[in-house]
Amino acid sequence: LRARIAGTPSASPEDARRTNRSLVLRALHLGGPTSRAELAKLISVTPATVSSVVRDLLADGLVEELGRTTARTVGKPATMVGIRPDGRHVAAIDLSSDHQVAGAIVDLNGKVLIRSGRDRADAVGDSLIAVVVDLCDELCGLAGAPLLGIGIATPGYVEPSGIIGTATRLHWTGVDLAAEIGGDVPVHVVNDANASALAELTFGDGDNRDLVVIRVDEGVGTGLVLDGVLHVGRSGGGGELGHVVIDPQGPPCECGKRGCLETFVSAPLAARRDRAGDAVAVDALLVEAGAALGRGVAILLSALDVGDVIVSGAVDVVDEPFLAAVRDAVAARTLTDFADRLDVRPTSFLDADVLLGAAALVLDRELGIR
Amino acid sequence: LRARIAGTPSASPEDARRTNRSLVLRALHLGGPTSRAELAKLISVTPATVSSVVRDLLADGLVEELGRTTARTVGKPATMVGIRPDGRHVAAIDLSSDHQVAGAIVDLNGKVLIRSGRDRADAVGDSLIAVVVDLCDELCGLAGAPLLGIGIATPGYVEPSGIIGTATRLHWTGVDLAAEIGGDVPVHVVNDANASALAELTFGDGDNRDLVVIRVDEGVGTGLVLDGVLHVGRSGGGGELGHVVIDPQGPPCECGKRGCLETFVSAPLAARRDRAGDAVAVDALLVEAGAALGRGVAILLSALDVGDVIVSGAVDVVDEPFLAAVRDAVAARTLTDFADRLDVRPTSFLDADVLLGAAALVLDRELGIR
Repeated sequence: LRARIAGTPSASPEDARRTNRSLVLRALHLGGPTSRAELAKLISVTPATVSSVVRDLLADGLVEELGRTTARTVGKPATMVGIRPDGRHVAAIDLSSDHQVAGAIVDLNGKVLIRSGRDRADAVGDSLIAVVVDLCDELCGLAGAPLLGIGIATPGYVEPSGIIGTATRLHWTGVDLAAEIGGDVPVHVVNDANASALAELTFGDGDNRDLVVIRVDEGVGTGLVLDGVLHVGRSGGGGELGHVVIDPQGPPCECGKRGCLETFVSAPLAARRDRAGDAVAVDALLVEAGAALGRGVAILLSALDVGDVIVSGAVDVVDEPFLAAVRDAVAARTLTDFADRLDVRPTSFLDADVLLGAAALVLDRELGIR
Repeated sequence: LRARIAGTPSASPEDARRTNRSLVLRALHLGGPTSRAELAKLISVTPATVSSVVRDLLADGLVEELGRTTARTVGKPATMVGIRPDGRHVAAIDLSSDHQVAGAIVDLNGKVLIRSGRDRADAVGDSLIAVVVDLCDELCGLAGAPLLGIGIATPGYVEPSGIIGTATRLHWTGVDLAAEIGGDVPVHVVNDANASALAELTFGDGDNRDLVVIRVDEGVGTGLVLDGVLHVGRSGGGGELGHVVIDPQGPPCECGKRGCLETFVSAPLAARRDRAGDAVAVDALLVEAGAALGRGVAILLSALDVGDVIVSGAVDVVDEPFLAAVRDAVAARTLTDFADRLDVRPTSFLDADVLLGAAALVLDRELGIR
């Protein structure tokens, strides 16, 4: 019940302190360097409270003073405060590729500082867990600042507790990576499509309050941001689209049904790998896959009334022939008003969106930055 | 920027007072009669603050004292406080039917006290505005308590300002009903599919934090509640589904395209009216329409990961042959895990869901009850 009485302010002084700390960090994350007086206005607390919170954050090394404003108002110029990018580092891991386990050290501004990874080499199940634990150890050693936490993005379903319920491609069921990794550093886990959406929300330019991320790799998943909030859904699986039947007379799918969206998208994408040298054939296959995806998601986008569509996936999937095919297929199936404001674009982060989303999850969970 | 720093507490004493008032009313709405001490815990303010807020609400006639608890804890039994259902009344109007303009007086518990309406008699445009204004006048006279406001649910797109951008079936463009109605009573406007979702969220039994309302009348629209919040979408149109193309080779649609979802749903529903005496034929047409709807929305439900689907519409549309057809079509197209928790059910409010949603909007906007 208490959870439903939204907007409930926190009761204990300790809760209030943590809330104010998060609000200051969130304001600095969203607005950049800001004076204490401006912060007090933005988060609606007294200047004395802001000064106290900033004093603690300076002592923790999470923020830094950045010189003085040229006075815009009367009175003496104010000292600006900003997030210290190297105040903490985050270790991020991306398990979405069948070929490698990607890892990175990311700073508090979402900058990838160091990359390191491991070949998957067909590792699944327990042997893949061992690869992840090993990569974690290496990343923790590479961090150039106190480690805020470890963020891991995975295909499959992630329970609210962080346990990976099912990740078929990894041969994982009920895997508790936090327990496997051990140690004192907090570990947070998120579905890969949701991670990509979180990266856009946290580190993307522009508004990003309403967007649909479509992640296309072996499967097809979505990450939804509505009114500035990531919706992970009840099963934390990044909105499964791949196994929705589009045509019951379509080709058989590995799930046992026929004509799943995935069969129309994945088959041409798989075929393009076999024709790598033939640019014309590859483009045609990309267009075929993109058009199928667009046909599938038109109704989703219309129902959500969201025109900002961000595609995440392999380097040629986040490029024009594919994106244009998605765009054209959606536009041909939706009302003109909607089609006019449709914007199908690649992730802002090249191939690092899932990694950055894993890092963003840690920033949110540990510091309230989002 | 300030809006994005979510959870920002209010600054001025006046804001704080209004917030606490809303929180008390929301707690009483969700939890029923509650003692002051329990309220203080639920909304995390001091007992003195709750006492002051409750004193004001008693003076305003919005809450009432309801006798004493049998002591569950030590100390003397506490006086329970509850929302006074007749503390205010709301006038609600539903414009979604082509045949009549429905109206009602609704109390603070969402109970329909009085119904009154007008035959549409082909009224559109200005003449329909006159009908609405006339019905408003009557309803205001029928209220047995001070009127909290007027809530109006309409097909079409409602701008955030409350102006009806486009309601094709009503021949309305840029209609400002608040200005047309005039007077001092607040007027709030909402799309009809969104109204139905708001009714479920505000007055429905159970959790209702994640649900999709599908409203089937002349068109097909959706209302989405995710994490306890109604998402009206950018254009406030209740997620247009009817004019998404399902089959480009399908029958021509009034929108100029071919094979829109609406052509597959509306045509059999229209045909059933012509065969009113033939129950077998009518059921077959309802099944045909329901199956088409289920085929269309399977991907939406999967992507949202929402299994609670509430159908709103005519009396035979919210009944079994249609609902079963929707259910079967969605289940046949989605993964077993999802199909297992799919629950396609009729609105909880018979034909009053849109009216009650219009009333719920007024409760939310004027009192913070949701």
